[in-house]
Amino acid sequence: MDGNRQIVINELPNGPLREDNFRLIEGTIPQPRAGEVLCRNILVSLDPVNRIWLEPGPAYRTEHPGMTLDDAGDGAPAEGGPGLDPAVSRRAQPLRDIRKVLRPGDVMDAFTLSEVVDSNRTDLPEGLVVACVAGWQEYAAVPAAWARPIDVRASLTHHIGVLGISGLTAYFGLRHVARPQAGETVVVSSAAGAVGTIVGQLAKLVGARVVGLTRSDAKNRLLERELGFDAAVNYRSPTFAQDVATACPDGVDVFYDNVGGSVLATMLEAMNDHGRVTCCGVVSQYDGTPAVGLANVPLVLCVKRLRVEGMTVTDFVDLWPQAEREMAEWIAAGRLKALEEVTEGLETAPRGLIGLLAGENIGKRTVRVGPDPLATPAP
Amino acid sequence: MDGNRQIVINELPNGPLREDNFRLIEGTIPQPRAGEVLCRNILVSLDPVNRIWLEPGPAYRTEHPGMTLDDAGDGAPAEGGPGLDPAVSRRAQPLRDIRKVLRPGDVMDAFTLSEVVDSNRTDLPEGLVVACVAGWQEYAAVPAAWARPIDVRASLTHHIGVLGISGLTAYFGLRHVARPQAGETVVVSSAAGAVGTIVGQLAKLVGARVVGLTRSDAKNRLLERELGFDAAVNYRSPTFAQDVATACPDGVDVFYDNVGGSVLATMLEAMNDHGRVTCCGVVSQYDGTPAVGLANVPLVLCVKRLRVEGMTVTDFVDLWPQAEREMAEWIAAGRLKALEEVTEGLETAPRGLIGLLAGENIGKRTVRVGPDPLATPAP
Repeated sequence: MDGNRQIVINELPNGPLREDNFRLIEGTIPQPRAGEVLCRNILVSLDPVNRIWLEPGPAYRTEHPGMTLDDAGDGAPAEGGPGLDPAVSRRAQPLRDIRKVLRPGDVMDAFTLSEVVDSNRTDLPEGLVVACVAGWQEYAAVPAAWARPIDVRASLTHHIGVLGISGLTAYFGLRHVARPQAGETVVVSSAAGAVGTIVGQLAKLVGARVVGLTRSDAKNRLLERELGFDAAVNYRSPTFAQDVATACPDGVDVFYDNVGGSVLATMLEAMNDHGRVTCCGVVSQYDGTPAVGLANVPLVLCVKRLRVEGMTVTDFVDLWPQAEREMAEWIAAGRLKALEEVTEGLETAPRGLIGLLAGENIGKRTVRVGPDPLATPAP
Repeated sequence: MDGNRQIVINELPNGPLREDNFRLIEGTIPQPRAGEVLCRNILVSLDPVNRIWLEPGPAYRTEHPGMTLDDAGDGAPAEGGPGLDPAVSRRAQPLRDIRKVLRPGDVMDAFTLSEVVDSNRTDLPEGLVVACVAGWQEYAAVPAAWARPIDVRASLTHHIGVLGISGLTAYFGLRHVARPQAGETVVVSSAAGAVGTIVGQLAKLVGARVVGLTRSDAKNRLLERELGFDAAVNYRSPTFAQDVATACPDGVDVFYDNVGGSVLATMLEAMNDHGRVTCCGVVSQYDGTPAVGLANVPLVLCVKRLRVEGMTVTDFVDLWPQAEREMAEWIAAGRLKALEEVTEGLETAPRGLIGLLAGENIGKRTVRVGPDPLATPAP
């Protein structure tokens, strides 16, 4: 092994993310300490939540002393991976699991699929493929508790996408939080993204009418033609609210929201009584755009008795294996399609994330950083 | 019987409610039609929701064509009482149950306790005390399905308060929506009101730590001394967020909100992960005050996985008798106190409602309109 190419944070963004917020460096391959294994990254996942990790002062911060983001910092190692320590006090580290404070000089963090290449643990043997949070680099020393062995059922790009964080997020946010019934109408925003494409298809599998929201007519046609969405609406249209009403003649029972802001405000008005909203993400305000205040909250919630609920996939970690198995079966049976965009080389990550935040992607966007050990003979 | 004194709407308010928005008239006693009974009002309930019924264009209205308030109007008779027809299409009349459009010349609407005085129905005999929605007047012809017989267990002022709409709202919004556990911290806003005083005491009965929010230090002391609240915080204090943190050293697990706006925004920041918010009312924006946009929604919901849920007591109508019985037992055992303010005479209703909206009241505010048939011999 030679050096360890890494992309570090050059400067935290002050507005939309730019390529010069990062720089590529030639680091050294770390020596795993006690309790760690050395991982070589295969695939790096690009996710909207990555942008939050670069934001020292998000819009929802207030002066409340118990809840500032700084509480989650302290230079402690990043958390949030599958092995999140349940013993960590919820109160002491309230934002820890999905908010990691990154600082200039830090390696950019990311979910990864990685191969164990140096280990003295029998439960994590060399050659094993694991899901972890090993960042934008070739090698990382990772706490053993954060490396989750993958039961390989499909291509590794599937395991970092539809069977990874984004697919599991779709699964639990829809089936365990919103809980649509057959015959109900489900609307999903960022519908052409890694989460949205899966949410829509899972909602079809439960027998719901499914309507996608994107800001692109071309994406919308793709959702209707390729993924079986019943309709799709462009949320940048001046007639957006009317278009939703037309696409949802029986109103909206479930809204799976990845966007927030004015899209959420409009959708709350479109909900039926007793509707359920999964708040999965707020991509409208991740990349330097000021938050839109929702003046219709909480009045519209009271009037329509809506349930609006935030979710994070790590809360369902005990149920991941069963969900992975179920989705792998649907994929094998052709009932669930995974749209993927894989770029080659660590250096494509910054451009890829910037484009993701601008809504360029269709489906899951991943960066291939190293060879797939399942596709080539082991050394 | 002579005339029927009624208070009608003179002019819809354009800003805070004023006494000259109403006028007292001498009407006639109506003849009940088929399916109706004639009721004589005993007690008229004053509730913050009354103010919504006077608002033709609330803040949460948008251009969405399926959901305008006008859909709920059409001059149809008012609904929302206990006898709400379950056959009414939820979709066709989405706002019907809690939003009644009142217009100049209409009798002001209100929840009432009334005596059946003219009836040919064996299930609603003359002399029976019923809960209905008979408005600011002495007599009303009421559809039989909307008159709910009262199983008299306590004083009638209790039956229109702690055992009526406001107490049942507290019961279901706390126990069925927020569902606090022993040892958790529950915060309630408008804590000295008809709903808040009951919410706080019910939360104590499940073993929670209870903190009340009002805008009056005098009310706060009363909550602590008379009703067993563990602490109370003035939400107009410049150190409000810090005061909440001090009063809630283990964070906030449940927030029962009657206020909305900036109080809700601050409380969302104080919530623990997996906290639950009952959205029961938005008194901060009922009386002509512009709505405050919540910029921290939905981001704070995502980060902390909060569940924020609107509720209306009419959704739990099948469970009312059991809840009434349970609360009546707690009252009899001295475990639940009902604070009440009763004014005498129909003409006190406008001033009473205006004061309620300004936060003058402590506990349930009711207007006595006619004699209590249980206290005096029947005619």
